[in-house]
Amino acid sequence: MFSLTVRDHVMVAHSFRGEVFGPAQRLHGATFVVDATFHRAELDADNLVVDIGLAATELTAILGELNYRNLDDDPDFAGVNTTTEFLAKVVADRLAARIADGKLGEGARGLSEISVTMRESHIAWATYTRAL
Amino acid sequence: MFSLTVRDHVMVAHSFRGEVFGPAQRLHGATFVVDATFHRAELDADNLVVDIGLAATELTAILGELNYRNLDDDPDFAGVNTTTEFLAKVVADRLAARIADGKLGEGARGLSEISVTMRESHIAWATYTRAL
Amino acid sequence: MFSLTVRDHVMVAHSFRGEVFGPAQRLHGATFVVDATFHRAELDADNLVVDIGLAATELTAILGELNYRNLDDDPDFAGVNTTTEFLAKVVADRLAARIADGKLGEGARGLSEISVTMRESHIAWATYTRAL
Amino acid sequence: MFSLTVRDHVMVAHSFRGEVFGPAQRLHGATFVVDATFHRAELDADNLVVDIGLAATELTAILGELNYRNLDDDPDFAGVNTTTEFLAKVVADRLAARIADGKLGEGARGLSEISVTMRESHIAWATYTRAL
Amino acid sequence: MFSLTVRDHVMVAHSFRGEVFGPAQRLHGATFVVDATFHRAELDADNLVVDIGLAATELTAILGELNYRNLDDDPDFAGVNTTTEFLAKVVADRLAARIADGKLGEGARGLSEISVTMRESHIAWATYTRAL
Amino acid sequence: MFSLTVRDHVMVAHSFRGEVFGPAQRLHGATFVVDATFHRAELDADNLVVDIGLAATELTAILGELNYRNLDDDPDFAGVNTTTEFLAKVVADRLAARIADGKLGEGARGLSEISVTMRESHIAWATYTRAL
Repeated sequence: MFSLTVRDHVMVAHSFRGEVFGPAQRLHGATFVVDATFHRAELDADNLVVDIGLAATELTAILGELNYRNLDDDPDFAGVNTTTEFLAKVVADRLAARIADGKLGEGARGLSEISVTMRESHIAWATYTRAL
Repeated sequence: MFSLTVRDHVMVAHSFRGEVFGPAQRLHGATFVVDATFHRAELDADNLVVDIGLAATELTAILGELNYRNLDDDPDFAGVNTTTEFLAKVVADRLAARIADGKLGEGARGLSEISVTMRESHIAWATYTRAL
Repeated sequence: MFSLTVRDHVMVAHSFRGEVFGPAQRLHGATFVVDATFHRAELDADNLVVDIGLAATELTAILGELNYRNLDDDPDFAGVNTTTEFLAKVVADRLAARIADGKLGEGARGLSEISVTMRESHIAWATYTRAL
Repeated sequence: MFSLTVRDHVMVAHSFRGEVFGPAQRLHGATFVVDATFHRAELDADNLVVDIGLAATELTAILGELNYRNLDDDPDFAGVNTTTEFLAKVVADRLAARIADGKLGEGARGLSEISVTMRESHIAWATYTRAL
Repeated sequence: MFSLTVRDHVMVAHSFRGEVFGPAQRLHGATFVVDATFHRAELDADNLVVDIGLAATELTAILGELNYRNLDDDPDFAGVNTTTEFLAKVVADRLAARIADGKLGEGARGLSEISVTMRESHIAWATYTRAL
Repeated sequence: MFSLTVRDHVMVAHSFRGEVFGPAQRLHGATFVVDATFHRAELDADNLVVDIGLAATELTAILGELNYRNLDDDPDFAGVNTTTEFLAKVVADRLAARIADGKLGEGARGLSEISVTMRESHIAWATYTRAL
């Protein structure tokens, strides 16, 4: 099994609802360093998991939908807590949709799985993994 | 599949028995940077894998049982080599016990697996993964 | 010359005013991983630059004044852009005040200089250095 | 499940064939920071996954076959693109052969799986995982 | 004193002349992770050291002159060893020229010093610092 | 001004005397990731700060005098607290002696300054800098 990972980041504001969040119920923010990992059983004819240029471009585009924004104002996230683990799924699902749309190239149709890790600090991060 | 990781560290002395350990048979020490990863299939109602505050508190408490000590003097480890890989299992098993005791919150009962990575230097680390 | 550094982090929301900031004029957020470095010419009688426990406690307390907040609402920062470089100075100046107040211990009076580095992502950070 | 990882690096020149590679079709180079991970279900009698000294020595030896070379001139790679993901498999397969030859010690025969991660920069890396 | 740092990378082939270089006399390659640090005594009216967007764009442009190339074929480097420390000076001097040309904005004329760090692996790096 | 840095590590046991050390008065241990930085005004005829191979070899040799040992038993450190900042000076002074002895090559006589950083964890480190 092979995988390829590209890293980018996003800077957002948000707040959480629920006593479990303590002071994070207040409006605050985070930098998420985002690792997107693409998995496949065998390499393509060019010896690639995926076109790394397209992978990086599409990851940046997806993060651009969130970047420099207050996620509390995003209608896609109305009424939900945009936790690190939840956002990892958002990014992974949006990458999966772009792969299905052919935006990561025809070769990307051979991918079997993607993982997204969101690092919120040097001491905490979350990952979501899904099949394609 | 989702996961959440929290990082802490512990500083211990110990020695090893067996020729395979070479100079590490002498009393020496290590800083272990410890990553505890909690896995579950679906997020809870708050969109969390686990209460990150409780996870960090309990990890620190478990490491506190080892921290600033000579592990050769710990009766729990009498006659065993406290290698990095062995200590990863010790921390994971103690976390599992605290999860079972409810110390990471009721939501933590939905966790399916935990992994503990102990980094002994910038060029070596070990991981233990177990079901819950 | 000796120095000692301790690391912590803070998660804030803020926005910037001025066309130079582009999309960062919108309300967004950041995690700042914060390194506070204490300098002195000679070690104290315990062979320390500063009491590392007190240094970490006071850094956490200073970051606690900012943590999980929207800096746009902080009266201390009314009408100013809370850029990474500006915040490095805020943290350094507040540390200097606590050193002068004796909160980092009597030994800390031998410190000559402090630096604060704020890392806003894996690809950008800022530092402020000042005499004591 | 246990694992142990050792890190080393290698510095090579190479070029790629195929339009997908863009400017990387030109002769260029890379430092690969290489993480070799060894997996097994249970620790051996010394509480080890593998003899870490032998693991590091053999990884260095394998990387030494590639180090400070132009991979375009290596007959083993004639007509193939030596992408990061491809090289991860090369290193993993060569480690597997050395394990089979007993070079990582008798205990290494209990290993079930190895993974090799090659980091080509701070923002991109690839992994290959195989059974033993 | 304030500083701001931006990070990028470049992937090159090259070889060295001289017995001191041992196997690095052969054609090989490197990824250099490059940190460019800009220093100034006081922040500008926007509370900035330098426009981070322009700084990143110009650093990428300078690295683009070297990226995916064999430095042995670059007439600028004919007859010289393109060591890590030498390349740090090349990048710093080219940044200084662009600052003088106004490409980093008018505010960048207040910069007093720049440093460039080139990381060739996880265990070796070099820095060049110069006045502006 | 140029600098070159090489990284290695050392694993030791030790204990501290004095109430300021709290639980670190007990016998414990640490991994120190050690960065040795060599400074000089101009590069030598090979475009080097120092022979990186000799620098790494000598750093490893110096750390080998401490590695896998209980520093409380080292007569060189009788009656002193082997704090991180103190050990940074020990390593720097021993490097300076080897430079004076010619062990880092004749070119190393052009070095003006060395710094040693000892990282005791992901959140704390110390540096000692001295002239040559």
